[in-house]
Amino acid sequence: MPVRIDPHRSRQLNRLSILQLLRAHGELSGYDLARRTGLSRTAAYNVVDELLASATVRERLGRSRGGRRPVLYSLNPDTGFVIGVDLGGSRIRAESFSFDEKSVASSEVPMGLTGNGGVLSSVLEAVGNVTSSLPGPVLGIGIAAPGLVDASQGMVLQAANLGWQDVPLAQILSGRFGRPVIVDNDTNAATLAETRFGAGRGHRNVVYVRADTGIGAGLVLDGKLYRGELGVVGEVGHTVLEPDGALCACGRRGCLETLASVPAMVRRYRALRGETGPGELRFKDLTSRAYAGDEAARVTLRESGRWLGHALGNVANLLGPSAILLAGQVAGGGPLLWEPLLAELRHRALSPAAGQIWVARGELKERAGTVGAAQLVFEQVFSPDHEDWLPALRDRQAEGGSQADQDEGEDGGGARESNGSCMG
Amino acid sequence: MPVRIDPHRSRQLNRLSILQLLRAHGELSGYDLARRTGLSRTAAYNVVDELLASATVRERLGRSRGGRRPVLYSLNPDTGFVIGVDLGGSRIRAESFSFDEKSVASSEVPMGLTGNGGVLSSVLEAVGNVTSSLPGPVLGIGIAAPGLVDASQGMVLQAANLGWQDVPLAQILSGRFGRPVIVDNDTNAATLAETRFGAGRGHRNVVYVRADTGIGAGLVLDGKLYRGELGVVGEVGHTVLEPDGALCACGRRGCLETLASVPAMVRRYRALRGETGPGELRFKDLTSRAYAGDEAARVTLRESGRWLGHALGNVANLLGPSAILLAGQVAGGGPLLWEPLLAELRHRALSPAAGQIWVARGELKERAGTVGAAQLVFEQVFSPDHEDWLPALRDRQAEGGSQADQDEGEDGGGARESNGSCMG
Repeated sequence: MPVRIDPHRSRQLNRLSILQLLRAHGELSGYDLARRTGLSRTAAYNVVDELLASATVRERLGRSRGGRRPVLYSLNPDTGFVIGVDLGGSRIRAESFSFDEKSVASSEVPMGLTGNGGVLSSVLEAVGNVTSSLPGPVLGIGIAAPGLVDASQGMVLQAANLGWQDVPLAQILSGRFGRPVIVDNDTNAATLAETRFGAGRGHRNVVYVRADTGIGAGLVLDGKLYRGELGVVGEVGHTVLEPDGALCACGRRGCLETLASVPAMVRRYRALRGETGPGELRFKDLTSRAYAGDEAARVTLRESGRWLGHALGNVANLLGPSAILLAGQVAGGGPLLWEPLLAELRHRALSPAAGQIWVARGELKERAGTVGAAQLVFEQVFSPDHEDWLPALRDRQAEGGSQADQDEGEDGGGARESNGSCMG
Repeated sequence: MPVRIDPHRSRQLNRLSILQLLRAHGELSGYDLARRTGLSRTAAYNVVDELLASATVRERLGRSRGGRRPVLYSLNPDTGFVIGVDLGGSRIRAESFSFDEKSVASSEVPMGLTGNGGVLSSVLEAVGNVTSSLPGPVLGIGIAAPGLVDASQGMVLQAANLGWQDVPLAQILSGRFGRPVIVDNDTNAATLAETRFGAGRGHRNVVYVRADTGIGAGLVLDGKLYRGELGVVGEVGHTVLEPDGALCACGRRGCLETLASVPAMVRRYRALRGETGPGELRFKDLTSRAYAGDEAARVTLRESGRWLGHALGNVANLLGPSAILLAGQVAGGGPLLWEPLLAELRHRALSPAAGQIWVARGELKERAGTVGAAQLVFEQVFSPDHEDWLPALRDRQAEGGSQADQDEGEDGGGARESNGSCMG
């Protein structure tokens, strides 16, 4: 019985397979594209032809491995650009990326006055700086925001640093820029960034913990950013480790944040030295003193390392990740912090997982926010909805590309095959 | 430019969409199938025709809503049967399910002697009992096994109750039965069962905790069973809550299992009463005494409830689930256990998630294992690999169904459309 298939949907999926392969591998021959997609060579070349025609993909002649020189395909960097924006504590960073996810330009501007107006004008300035001379369209803008964010609505629910409450940031900025805007919290963005380009490369189940003033985690599970359902995820900082411990800002006692955040460590250090009056100390100063031999500082780093290992051991037992990454200032605590952390984590984690988990410091440092914010957009661009994000493909559809679906024929593919870029 | 699509793959995906819709909704008209798949009516009817021809789907005339009587489609219950097997502590349960996931027959046989031979012959007996008079083929067998299981290999790595170590159970049983066998641990199976048919129905992010002799959890995240990567997942029983607490079997101190498992509660109760000699007490006896006014028993239930709430609050903060389910004997502790559990969970969980999480007792009780074991198979049967599991469809492919892909035509669909089961 003849089965009629939906040509538009199939073509979308085939195109997506090829775009994703080129995203993952950089450059592939038509033979490889057909083999890895499971498409016939004819079908694969027809999709490639369409992507070439819309300038989404480019081709070049590769080196011969004994026979004909193969034609190699890769994403066209100028197809469009993605902007990642990180709303930091005192400055706003923006970075532009080409379609093949290479950094093109970056800009850092001081945060304007708090409140919507000041921050927004700084965002506009930073984005303007990295988009002024791009040789292609902006596909979308990703924003890594501090505080509580509802990513599905693009809303910043609460961000004390910015003085924001219930700000519909995605809507405001997409109005200003005329391009789609995705907003998520900075920890989720950094988690994506480290998993794709940083210390978690190649891992499908990653726990990313950032320990600074607060402690929060992001999760990549089964290869995807996990957002949970009720807006609160990754709150490892409020795992209670010492039921009768110090009071936390959240109202509970003995949370990890009261034991291993920067303010907690500074408090602990000063308490150990019997200092009680006012006094400021940066984390950097604490570590310098520790490595210069200050025993109170050394004890502080060791204790906090142990508490972090304790909390991460619990997380490891619950989620069985293959990688645990630690970032933020605290990750710079050096071996005095890391050694007890690792020992405690291994001790807490149930075998056989314990020895195999990759535990490492985040690599991307202050770039994690912009790289991750751009990833929020790239994840959409390389999704089944890609047509919505790629003007070149969308325009082709509108111009009648969809009519071509109807008059199928063998010729296009057959002719191409005899052009002979297929090696065996 | 004509784009040639891969007909076999497209047809598979379209067929899967329709099978999944009928699985979720029970019965749908051709109009609904087309609307919900996004296929043209012609395309939808062609897939349905194929499924009717292979007797995978059946049709009947529905009630008129003013116009023609619609034709309604549903899964054919006799297409094939799935067997779920639960390897319990002292008995083996098997249950057979029709293609539309209705229970057909169940059997319980006492566990044979431990060691491979005894257990396996009991499994064969129980499976034999529920497959002897089925009106269709067995599609596959799912096994819920206790202990440490490598689901990807179908291996029971360690199961003290059964006296097993590194038993390739899937391989052994598929050899005996000549059908595919999937093995996973009993907690994962029960998690699937409760999410699909029990207290977690309709939820996409579920934490399922079973508290008996031990305490373990299963996770459904983003709608899928989450297995992690290193074989250890859901070990919430070994979350350390009291760093200087009692020694746990795992070698650490103060794990949740030392505070809220059945043996821990019995120990705590006897300690509160100053009993030190040998003595056995069932959980049932403990709760009876508590509700009869025994203060030590009441304190025991309350304390364990609070510790469970504490641990679940940490899990809620990490994963932001929409449902938390508690099963096992301890879940039968009644309000003396549940009230402090809920209070502590709400107190620990960070708003705004706290009030919205659905917290409930598992509903499926001793059937969770067999229902869940069968779900392990149904998840595969309704996956892109469905042809491997459905002999009727596979045989059609072999008989030349794939040739039909080539000679596409409008006729089949057109003729069907004029038969007019399409209402508006």
